[in-house]
Amino acid sequence: MKKLVLTGAAGRLGSYLREPLTALCDTLVSTDIVDDIGTLYAGETYVKADLAQMDQIAPVLEGADMVVHFGAIVDEKPFEELLGPNFVGSYNIWEAGYKAGVKRIVYASSIHAVGMHLKSDFIGIDAEHRPDTFYGLAKCFTEDLGRMYWDKRGLESVHLRILSCAQVNNTRALGSWLSYPDLIQLVTRAIDTPSVGFSIIYGVSNNDRAPVDNAKASFLGYRPIDNAEVYAAEVLAQAEPVDTTDPGQMCHGGPFAKVDLGQSGLAQMNVVNDKKQT
Amino acid sequence: MKKLVLTGAAGRLGSYLREPLTALCDTLVSTDIVDDIGTLYAGETYVKADLAQMDQIAPVLEGADMVVHFGAIVDEKPFEELLGPNFVGSYNIWEAGYKAGVKRIVYASSIHAVGMHLKSDFIGIDAEHRPDTFYGLAKCFTEDLGRMYWDKRGLESVHLRILSCAQVNNTRALGSWLSYPDLIQLVTRAIDTPSVGFSIIYGVSNNDRAPVDNAKASFLGYRPIDNAEVYAAEVLAQAEPVDTTDPGQMCHGGPFAKVDLGQSGLAQMNVVNDKKQT
Amino acid sequence: MKKLVLTGAAGRLGSYLREPLTALCDTLVSTDIVDDIGTLYAGETYVKADLAQMDQIAPVLEGADMVVHFGAIVDEKPFEELLGPNFVGSYNIWEAGYKAGVKRIVYASSIHAVGMHLKSDFIGIDAEHRPDTFYGLAKCFTEDLGRMYWDKRGLESVHLRILSCAQVNNTRALGSWLSYPDLIQLVTRAIDTPSVGFSIIYGVSNNDRAPVDNAKASFLGYRPIDNAEVYAAEVLAQAEPVDTTDPGQMCHGGPFAKVDLGQSGLAQMNVVNDKKQT
Amino acid sequence: MKKLVLTGAAGRLGSYLREPLTALCDTLVSTDIVDDIGTLYAGETYVKADLAQMDQIAPVLEGADMVVHFGAIVDEKPFEELLGPNFVGSYNIWEAGYKAGVKRIVYASSIHAVGMHLKSDFIGIDAEHRPDTFYGLAKCFTEDLGRMYWDKRGLESVHLRILSCAQVNNTRALGSWLSYPDLIQLVTRAIDTPSVGFSIIYGVSNNDRAPVDNAKASFLGYRPIDNAEVYAAEVLAQAEPVDTTDPGQMCHGGPFAKVDLGQSGLAQMNVVNDKKQT
Amino acid sequence: MKKLVLTGAAGRLGSYLREPLTALCDTLVSTDIVDDIGTLYAGETYVKADLAQMDQIAPVLEGADMVVHFGAIVDEKPFEELLGPNFVGSYNIWEAGYKAGVKRIVYASSIHAVGMHLKSDFIGIDAEHRPDTFYGLAKCFTEDLGRMYWDKRGLESVHLRILSCAQVNNTRALGSWLSYPDLIQLVTRAIDTPSVGFSIIYGVSNNDRAPVDNAKASFLGYRPIDNAEVYAAEVLAQAEPVDTTDPGQMCHGGPFAKVDLGQSGLAQMNVVNDKKQT
Amino acid sequence: MKKLVLTGAAGRLGSYLREPLTALCDTLVSTDIVDDIGTLYAGETYVKADLAQMDQIAPVLEGADMVVHFGAIVDEKPFEELLGPNFVGSYNIWEAGYKAGVKRIVYASSIHAVGMHLKSDFIGIDAEHRPDTFYGLAKCFTEDLGRMYWDKRGLESVHLRILSCAQVNNTRALGSWLSYPDLIQLVTRAIDTPSVGFSIIYGVSNNDRAPVDNAKASFLGYRPIDNAEVYAAEVLAQAEPVDTTDPGQMCHGGPFAKVDLGQSGLAQMNVVNDKKQT
Repeated sequence: MKKLVLTGAAGRLGSYLREPLTALCDTLVSTDIVDDIGTLYAGETYVKADLAQMDQIAPVLEGADMVVHFGAIVDEKPFEELLGPNFVGSYNIWEAGYKAGVKRIVYASSIHAVGMHLKSDFIGIDAEHRPDTFYGLAKCFTEDLGRMYWDKRGLESVHLRILSCAQVNNTRALGSWLSYPDLIQLVTRAIDTPSVGFSIIYGVSNNDRAPVDNAKASFLGYRPIDNAEVYAAEVLAQAEPVDTTDPGQMCHGGPFAKVDLGQSGLAQMNVVNDKKQT
Repeated sequence: MKKLVLTGAAGRLGSYLREPLTALCDTLVSTDIVDDIGTLYAGETYVKADLAQMDQIAPVLEGADMVVHFGAIVDEKPFEELLGPNFVGSYNIWEAGYKAGVKRIVYASSIHAVGMHLKSDFIGIDAEHRPDTFYGLAKCFTEDLGRMYWDKRGLESVHLRILSCAQVNNTRALGSWLSYPDLIQLVTRAIDTPSVGFSIIYGVSNNDRAPVDNAKASFLGYRPIDNAEVYAAEVLAQAEPVDTTDPGQMCHGGPFAKVDLGQSGLAQMNVVNDKKQT
Repeated sequence: MKKLVLTGAAGRLGSYLREPLTALCDTLVSTDIVDDIGTLYAGETYVKADLAQMDQIAPVLEGADMVVHFGAIVDEKPFEELLGPNFVGSYNIWEAGYKAGVKRIVYASSIHAVGMHLKSDFIGIDAEHRPDTFYGLAKCFTEDLGRMYWDKRGLESVHLRILSCAQVNNTRALGSWLSYPDLIQLVTRAIDTPSVGFSIIYGVSNNDRAPVDNAKASFLGYRPIDNAEVYAAEVLAQAEPVDTTDPGQMCHGGPFAKVDLGQSGLAQMNVVNDKKQT
Repeated sequence: MKKLVLTGAAGRLGSYLREPLTALCDTLVSTDIVDDIGTLYAGETYVKADLAQMDQIAPVLEGADMVVHFGAIVDEKPFEELLGPNFVGSYNIWEAGYKAGVKRIVYASSIHAVGMHLKSDFIGIDAEHRPDTFYGLAKCFTEDLGRMYWDKRGLESVHLRILSCAQVNNTRALGSWLSYPDLIQLVTRAIDTPSVGFSIIYGVSNNDRAPVDNAKASFLGYRPIDNAEVYAAEVLAQAEPVDTTDPGQMCHGGPFAKVDLGQSGLAQMNVVNDKKQT
Repeated sequence: MKKLVLTGAAGRLGSYLREPLTALCDTLVSTDIVDDIGTLYAGETYVKADLAQMDQIAPVLEGADMVVHFGAIVDEKPFEELLGPNFVGSYNIWEAGYKAGVKRIVYASSIHAVGMHLKSDFIGIDAEHRPDTFYGLAKCFTEDLGRMYWDKRGLESVHLRILSCAQVNNTRALGSWLSYPDLIQLVTRAIDTPSVGFSIIYGVSNNDRAPVDNAKASFLGYRPIDNAEVYAAEVLAQAEPVDTTDPGQMCHGGPFAKVDLGQSGLAQMNVVNDKKQT
Repeated sequence: MKKLVLTGAAGRLGSYLREPLTALCDTLVSTDIVDDIGTLYAGETYVKADLAQMDQIAPVLEGADMVVHFGAIVDEKPFEELLGPNFVGSYNIWEAGYKAGVKRIVYASSIHAVGMHLKSDFIGIDAEHRPDTFYGLAKCFTEDLGRMYWDKRGLESVHLRILSCAQVNNTRALGSWLSYPDLIQLVTRAIDTPSVGFSIIYGVSNNDRAPVDNAKASFLGYRPIDNAEVYAAEVLAQAEPVDTTDPGQMCHGGPFAKVDLGQSGLAQMNVVNDKKQT
């Protein structure tokens, strides 16, 4: 592969991906909205661009073979704030990618596209959309967009529904954890698999308590290694009792399943209607 | 019901709904983007408002019990043109409706949310999203939005996936036709059913050749009367041979399944990649 | 058929069945726990017997070809009160029936075996058990019992999950109503179908708003005639607004879905945990 | 349509189809293995040909638009006898049809392709193959053949799984009857539907007790009229008691489900292992 | 956890659980119907109580956080003998638990709740109930009871459908074996998982030939270690030929699938109708 | 086991099986159409026989306990060439086996029975038949034949849908590879499992990228060891770009999904209608 584009290169997950991605291509073009992402790796260049602006994004994708699209606001915000980067941004990537002859887009989707399913309902990659936030709604939008570009235009995409890629310091993370090495394996397989069509796969490590099912995406060959169970004793010892009427504790989306729409993810949780989920 | 709001009141379908809706409420507030919708029916008032502008929409919904949301650009257009009325417009209706204490929204969704399924695949209301156009993508977006507002906030909605509500002058319409009386019955039932949660139902008449399945929405009590088969002899006599490699003839979405994305529906069809649908 | 046994002959539904059943057999043996069921029809005899007492039930079934088992306490009660007639009574009928060489049992099961499913979830005859009361739990028990006697001993049974067989004076009944003529047709078909194995079928009329699916039981040939929609205008005009957080209004079981376990059906409804249904 | 070919024109069902088919085309070419099929209808010609001989079949299909393929031995026989007409014959029709540019084949498949399913298992058009005889096995073979010619070569086909098209004089026929008018409607719709891809549909009338499900083939617009229930009283009055251990009475295939493989359908039934069906 | 109750503490499986359970709580209250269960472990107390007697059971559950309910007659017996301990006993545990504020019940269900499914039908946790004995019927009853207490009252439960927890000395056990260490892991996970709602999971080791599917219960994090395949060579060498008409060899329930109802498990097997299972 | 018959003993896979099979029986009778298969193993005898000739096959199966049926033309050929060995040959094996009292047949089926499914559609053992060639059609035929002999006559069979058992030198093989040791394990388990009824299982190694699902056949205990991922780096480095409009690259069947029907597998690929697969 000659040219690979990584969006959201300044973000937490993007930062972890930059170096491994340079190994998969001649040139990695990293992009984000910040001025500078620090020291570049061999084979990497950086271009500042606003996802929400087609005229900034289109040039970045010129001549690219694939795009790893991790750029977005990664927290719950009012719809108006997410509209540009998370909705229009996805459209810009796909449309500019199509025009530039990009073969495939690997997208950081999220469990929050299906976050209102109950955690005791084991869900596969074909679970119906049940977003828990506007953040999750943008993931639903992008998955449907990707489906259409494949059906209509033959542009491939892999949608990685990442559960949680952070420290394991709560009981939910015992099931939802995606380690950084497993994230890198997942993105690598999404790139090196010869054909993927339109695919969805959960981004989760080999946790004993992983609550989702990747069986139908097995052709991608993702075989995670890490297991959050090594943290179980410590985490469970400190766990608070569960409130089984709290969607934030009962649903796949975790705290996002409880948070009021459009508020910053963890700031406040005075949900009025949370008992209405069915 | 005291106050009912109808958006898209100047549109073709909206025009047919105005009179019957006045029978279901004390006041029907019709709204659209035009200056004037002609003579009003008893109990009807008209307010001009742009769906894409929250400050215009919110006042219209004040004090409403339900909204019948038919307002949108009803043709395929570039994403940028649809973004305001068809995407942001839906958000505005739901968010303003929620803040105004609206109980339920009845939405004109469309077969184009699932238009890339093959017509020989009989689809139910749980068929996965496969939009055929940006127009259809906006329907997907709104269905997911409606799901979230029900799950998180208890705001009910019924999504009417209308197949085609127009003259029966082609073979596709023998299956897809929704007559005006059946449209009115469908909207009436979506309003008078005591509770609906989040529901999807196809808008199609009692056609012999109807290609979709409403079984799982039977609690809504929609029982269409008209049957496009009365036009079959005439239509079939004039039908051109089918090209089985043309998605426009093989898919539920009809011509939209073939049209290039973002172009006006029927203007041009120089699709490059149409054979890629799976 | 020579001898047919009807249990619960003094009950409301049993009373309606007595005369039509005499037309299907040489001798109808009606039984119940009361002393007397009034004037007998031609071909009918009456025997008093307590379902909970095997030594009273076994003699009644001697020489019978089939049993129509409608006997039970037909209201929610504490488990201890239902144990005899509704649980042990079913066992007695099946075990005595087996020993007596009975070919088939037609059983009055109930929607309350699956009453905690949401009404907006259209359910088929293979919906998983979700009883809403001890009354419903006894129906689940009897269905499983019937399954076992078929699997192990070849004793056939048809389980009629009756929705509601009473006046249509509330919105739930617009969907759930089973008219008496349709009840009679249903029982007749359950008897005259040559082989039934172990079958479940919903007992509901041809209501526009019927919320359940008998498709998989179509071989029984039940085609209901009556339609509660004739009462719709009147009932809807008087309907109270729905509380979408109330399981009694949102679930198939209706008020039983809300009532506290073990209390008489409609007496009190101070449910503490009703929001926990999923 | 200019030229339509009907195979099996001398058979019972073929005879009923000849006249109606002449109304759908300029020329109906009827073919069978006999010398003569009697007086021809206007627009009909007859050609004697052996299905098992490609050199006899290929010329018949030259220039045809569609083929209605009803030719076969229509009884259970040893495999060796069926091999030519029922297996090789189907191949010859499809291969010759493909080479001749035929657009579509309408095939008389049979319930015997799925005859070992239990009658109390309501089956749809996607039921897995469970043939009950070599006769049924040939139907499975031809369905798979038709699937392949569509997938690989774009040759359309409709496979009519006829249940039983004969007098209603037994209890099975109350469910399985296909009247001649409904047969004609079924074949007509299989021909006049603009595109069909690869489709399967059951051939059964609008019987109360019809044990199969055509829901997923609804786009074909087949709406049968006749109902075997008019014969129910008489048939049931004379019915023998059912032996629930007899696959011939419990399975969709009826007597064929019991008959020893390779024997003439109803001649003998000394099955050794019939209890092994699962 | 302060107080944990173990019923059936004198039984074979209960005996294995006593010590490990003391590690999970401050106080383990073991209970059974015998006078004495031998030397107690640190943190354990013993109370004699009859499951069938609410007035004996209710005091034992006072103040408990969870209950591990393994008490029951663990063999097939006539219904009348099982009624008290296996049916009423379950009710007493759930009702007393609810009144005492117990958060969760971990229940020893059994493969015999679904024992009449064919072993060549791989079954998941959502397999429909097909009990093979009255023993299995009590498991079905208790699962439905647990479902209702969760739906109506928010009382959580995990139902462990144990396949066989004994020596591996027959071919069935190569698939069905649950080792003691894996049993302990299973019970531990059922206790330490923060929320479980109503859950079902099969109790089986990591056998090559395990015939059931726990995929949908993966959130419980049960990962068995032992594998009966180590016994395969020896067991297979001594195996008798299979009789494929014997439900005891073909069904998940093993010998219970063949045994006459109500008889002691392995004593006699003169089944009359066993070929009728479907 | 006394006598085991292996057909296709001179073929590539047959050759690998001969020695391991001698360990499972007193006498292995190897058969093929060639005069000589070289040095025999201890316990092995060789008989030349033509699968297409019943009078040659029947004597070979006399007294056999099981048959491992790997004999067939193993390439795509015109139907007429495959008819004898691949179709009639299967019939001869089953019919002769039945008459000889054979208990079980282990059959080399193939992914080509379902080869037209898209590779991005993960398929289970219950995937519907979609043959990609006449070669694959013969596999479909034999699976249906095996189903019937089990349903009607109690003759067991295991159908091994082998993906590809050859060198890993292309990207498809990274998912489809079946190593020889895993092949031997698979055949061994198909033989030593006490009862199998009618079973289908995919023959594929423990490849990261295996695109099929054996979950429902887990009772057979097949646990492959080898993993084609060890060849991934080398293979992927040399891979050509994928043409996503080429069924040969997008479908499970690989090149066979593209090849013209009836032509030798890899010789020519001038497919006209390959884009028509749905």
